[in-house]
Amino acid sequence: MTIDIAQLERGIVKGDRRSLSRAITLVESSRADHREAAAELIEALKGADGIARQALRIGMSGTPGVGKSTFIEGFGRMLTGQGLRVAVLAVDPSSARSGGSILGDKTRMDLLSRDPNAFIRPSPSQTHLGGVGRRSREAVALCEAAGYDIVLIETVGVGQSETVVAEMADLFVLLLAPAGGDELQGVKRGIMEIADIILVNKADGDLKSAASRTCADYSGALRLLRKRPQDPDGFPKAMMVSALENAGLEIAWTEMQSLTDWRRKNSHWDTRRAAQARYWFGEEVRQGLLSQLETPDARAALRALGDDVAEGRTTPAIAARALLDRLGALANG
Amino acid sequence: MTIDIAQLERGIVKGDRRSLSRAITLVESSRADHREAAAELIEALKGADGIARQALRIGMSGTPGVGKSTFIEGFGRMLTGQGLRVAVLAVDPSSARSGGSILGDKTRMDLLSRDPNAFIRPSPSQTHLGGVGRRSREAVALCEAAGYDIVLIETVGVGQSETVVAEMADLFVLLLAPAGGDELQGVKRGIMEIADIILVNKADGDLKSAASRTCADYSGALRLLRKRPQDPDGFPKAMMVSALENAGLEIAWTEMQSLTDWRRKNSHWDTRRAAQARYWFGEEVRQGLLSQLETPDARAALRALGDDVAEGRTTPAIAARALLDRLGALANG
Repeated sequence: MTIDIAQLERGIVKGDRRSLSRAITLVESSRADHREAAAELIEALKGADGIARQALRIGMSGTPGVGKSTFIEGFGRMLTGQGLRVAVLAVDPSSARSGGSILGDKTRMDLLSRDPNAFIRPSPSQTHLGGVGRRSREAVALCEAAGYDIVLIETVGVGQSETVVAEMADLFVLLLAPAGGDELQGVKRGIMEIADIILVNKADGDLKSAASRTCADYSGALRLLRKRPQDPDGFPKAMMVSALENAGLEIAWTEMQSLTDWRRKNSHWDTRRAAQARYWFGEEVRQGLLSQLETPDARAALRALGDDVAEGRTTPAIAARALLDRLGALANG
Repeated sequence: MTIDIAQLERGIVKGDRRSLSRAITLVESSRADHREAAAELIEALKGADGIARQALRIGMSGTPGVGKSTFIEGFGRMLTGQGLRVAVLAVDPSSARSGGSILGDKTRMDLLSRDPNAFIRPSPSQTHLGGVGRRSREAVALCEAAGYDIVLIETVGVGQSETVVAEMADLFVLLLAPAGGDELQGVKRGIMEIADIILVNKADGDLKSAASRTCADYSGALRLLRKRPQDPDGFPKAMMVSALENAGLEIAWTEMQSLTDWRRKNSHWDTRRAAQARYWFGEEVRQGLLSQLETPDARAALRALGDDVAEGRTTPAIAARALLDRLGALANG
């Protein structure tokens, strides 16, 4: 890939989807020169047209089978129908296994992907969650610079991905399926703590009463959690939707907007964005330090010393000192 | 503290509790010379009497109010009553707030703390969970070298502390209180995945039927989880106990032993210990690299550049590059 930063910058600011795609590919690359070019591009875009464009960044999680694609398709088309431009980014660490799913992601949101006011970007095929996080955060910044009004950051409920996505979102939506009484209501507690709005999907047909019960269960559970300063009265809240029947989507959007407006008025929006920027700076620094372990030499030493430790020939602390000495990175040399 | 490694070593191998206490204080210290002495001590103890002593390391978690102290006191005294020597280590990241709770920990297990075959060590007052983890793991190794048969590693259900404790334990016990039907059954899914045995405490008096229901709920939930290779049939399992009435403690211990025996016979014990040693080696290396951020200079730079990022004057990636350049630690020159 030949990189013309200035050209990419112009394309993105104009809202050219091809430029945006190429720029996201650039930020997802782990090549050192690409990383550098990506950092420059984002710095340049920051002041590109004098104002910093801000999208509403919505983090969204839901386990497979909950109807997430159908929801995003319906929700996204409702938004574009109101004249809004919508970008959808998938942050899916598990996609590393299949090496990404470009075709899959496009076909599963068929109508939205053909909408000129929508931009859908499948997961980067990275194995390292931290890397996915950093690069996704930069992809969000690119979509914002490209003038999208809403950036949906989608994740599946694997490991720490929600926490990572919450660190780049203005609000977090959890999509759930109706659950029968004896099913495991296996929502991680950590998700309850970051969710601003819980949407119980599939509130249609045979599942309607189960959805209503599930919604009541979660409403009750949310009331047991301590109130967070960033929440107005009544939030976080649980609501029912049916992505299949396009029911409840507009009300859900109204609630998201009212939450957003309240946070903007009460300075939680800016405070949170500042804290997030600081967090990602720290992450970049930490990952930069840890990247010293990713050279072939360091990997080989890690493996060999790891074997010594695993077989009891030395202790973790002694082996670590040997490796750090070799890296010349001992803080208290 | 003047450090005589050889003397500490002899004291620990003899089972002298004062030496053990002093050695744990040494491993908990973050001073560079103490870290070095601690690493040497542990390396020396590894081959101290020709054989590597192995304790059964039991990780134990439970939120405040679940009756953990009463349980540990009863369980520990049952074990010492059988002629076993028991060490109890608390890994409590939240204790950083109160600066540790030495007196608290001793009084809350009054009888056990006066038992000559028991050793109780309160939490280190560290703010950094990673640090607590590494040092607790070394404290476990010291208790093992001191000839304790069982090392109980206790944690409260805060953040990632369970995962950290599970990485240093042979088996993991989760203590729960009976829950009413409309209470939040807020067990983190991650804990369900590491728990080998769930004990529903307070199965006595008015709470007995609630305990029975809770136990049945968790038995059901455990059956829904995928079987792990390290589990014989019937594990993980949920059981009822009453620490107050000393009921169920012996059966719980029998179950722990049968699980342990099975794992030893099926080589899961050694495999797991090897994997854990490798994990802690990796952690030592990562923490060693990240410790470059803990110098006063680095902290000041992190703060100043963090302000620039938070106030939008630069981007996380550009600021991180500036800091890494200053640390001279950029992996890709």
